[in-house]
Amino acid sequence: MDIRDKNILIVGLGVLGGSYAMALTEAGYKNVYAVNRSRASIDKALAAGVIKAGSTDVRDFAETADIAVIAVYPTGAEECARELGRLMKKGSLVTDVLGIKRYYSQKIAAQLPEYIDYVPAHPMAGREKRGLDFASAQVFKGANFIITPLERTSKEGAAQVERLARDMGFGNVRTLTPARHDAVIAYTSQLPHALAVALINSDEEDGQTGEFIGDSFRDLTRIAEINADLWQELFIGNRENLLQAIDCFTDQLARIREAVDKKDAQSLRGMFEKSSARRAKLIKKK
Amino acid sequence: MDIRDKNILIVGLGVLGGSYAMALTEAGYKNVYAVNRSRASIDKALAAGVIKAGSTDVRDFAETADIAVIAVYPTGAEECARELGRLMKKGSLVTDVLGIKRYYSQKIAAQLPEYIDYVPAHPMAGREKRGLDFASAQVFKGANFIITPLERTSKEGAAQVERLARDMGFGNVRTLTPARHDAVIAYTSQLPHALAVALINSDEEDGQTGEFIGDSFRDLTRIAEINADLWQELFIGNRENLLQAIDCFTDQLARIREAVDKKDAQSLRGMFEKSSARRAKLIKKK
Repeated sequence: MDIRDKNILIVGLGVLGGSYAMALTEAGYKNVYAVNRSRASIDKALAAGVIKAGSTDVRDFAETADIAVIAVYPTGAEECARELGRLMKKGSLVTDVLGIKRYYSQKIAAQLPEYIDYVPAHPMAGREKRGLDFASAQVFKGANFIITPLERTSKEGAAQVERLARDMGFGNVRTLTPARHDAVIAYTSQLPHALAVALINSDEEDGQTGEFIGDSFRDLTRIAEINADLWQELFIGNRENLLQAIDCFTDQLARIREAVDKKDAQSLRGMFEKSSARRAKLIKKK
Repeated sequence: MDIRDKNILIVGLGVLGGSYAMALTEAGYKNVYAVNRSRASIDKALAAGVIKAGSTDVRDFAETADIAVIAVYPTGAEECARELGRLMKKGSLVTDVLGIKRYYSQKIAAQLPEYIDYVPAHPMAGREKRGLDFASAQVFKGANFIITPLERTSKEGAAQVERLARDMGFGNVRTLTPARHDAVIAYTSQLPHALAVALINSDEEDGQTGEFIGDSFRDLTRIAEINADLWQELFIGNRENLLQAIDCFTDQLARIREAVDKKDAQSLRGMFEKSSARRAKLIKKK
């Protein structure tokens, strides 16, 4: 059976689940279903023509689903997996979209019988805003998609999820261990969010700063407008890695501070040349 | 005399001086001259039609200049002012483009006789790249322009520089004391650059990170590709303010670290809600 004819069930029509629905429908998937706590998002998705049918009750579609996507908040993932595990058929597949993998993948896996394949995944194309209204298939185009297989994950299952990712427009599909994924993501995603939040919260707030900001400040604080519920879960769920990333960063900032304090032009120049070379290399790679 | 008929001398055809030449010529200024250490940039500017004439010797145009723009590196500004002070006529005006004001404005002022008006200014539209090849009149459109008058600065002189700024396309022209300017800029410009440098330099550099970066990391490190010579001057020249800004930031980051360490979801949520509200307000103001 062509994968585009399979029954795909998206659980959670938030910004990511909604974007999956849009991107899959756009790619020619014909049987995309959605389950969501509130009926309003279901109706919107139906009106937009990005799902075939939807319900507030997972039992309506879980039994016939070939592939289910867990697109709820991290703390809701375990309960969601429990329901899918009870209902889904033998040979079906579950994947997810969670931004941290080690902790939650274990929780999800524990709820799924061995006869359901499980392929943990992280589509790296977030949005600061929450909800279906901010969903968009465009954000996936060319973005990174990471698969973090467990021992139980089958090669065929991983290949199917890779196919979904490519059909949705992701540019790079990579495989990492859950532990390595979480260490990388602490540095490339959670640490930048922590810095943006700390930067904007360290303002004197005398009401004048906004008149004098330039591009650099605007770029660095864009992600300070953050989904508080989601991100506290991501921060605490990746605690050890994030603490380490913050400590590495703090050490580097302390070196800059020391060089400024001592008026050490040579050290500053060295750090700036290093950062310039690294940034140029990073972007080139992309 | 219409200001667009006056003799404008730009000293230093780097990215900012070059952008001034382009923006003024585009605005209909007919007598824009330039002095630059190397002949190559003069020839390029002539070929581009953005200056009327140019020279490597400041003596060729300083005596007839009505307005001179000091657009050299901060550490070259004092020497540049000394030459202009010796050569420029009574009633002429000097302005500059330096990104920190208190220290360098005093140095420049000390070199200019009282019969030359001096209007310190900071066009807030930098480029990460250096040199005339990256100059562009476009970067000024809608940007902030700050005038930091000294006691000796005449109202008429400040008004003339404001006119130049508006003609070049700047959106907001504001007046600040040099001390206030430097405190604001430490927070809105130098601190973000320090964070970007520290962030990219804290990478483990195992060669994999680049494959997994998302928009947030890309945004936050854009300014880590930095003009090392210029920025070490700006950092050290604004030492006290920058140290204070780094300390405020470090304190905020430490609070996030502590909340993560203690798995304190409530505190994290509070910090994220605060940062979101501040960011939304900041952008609205702009």
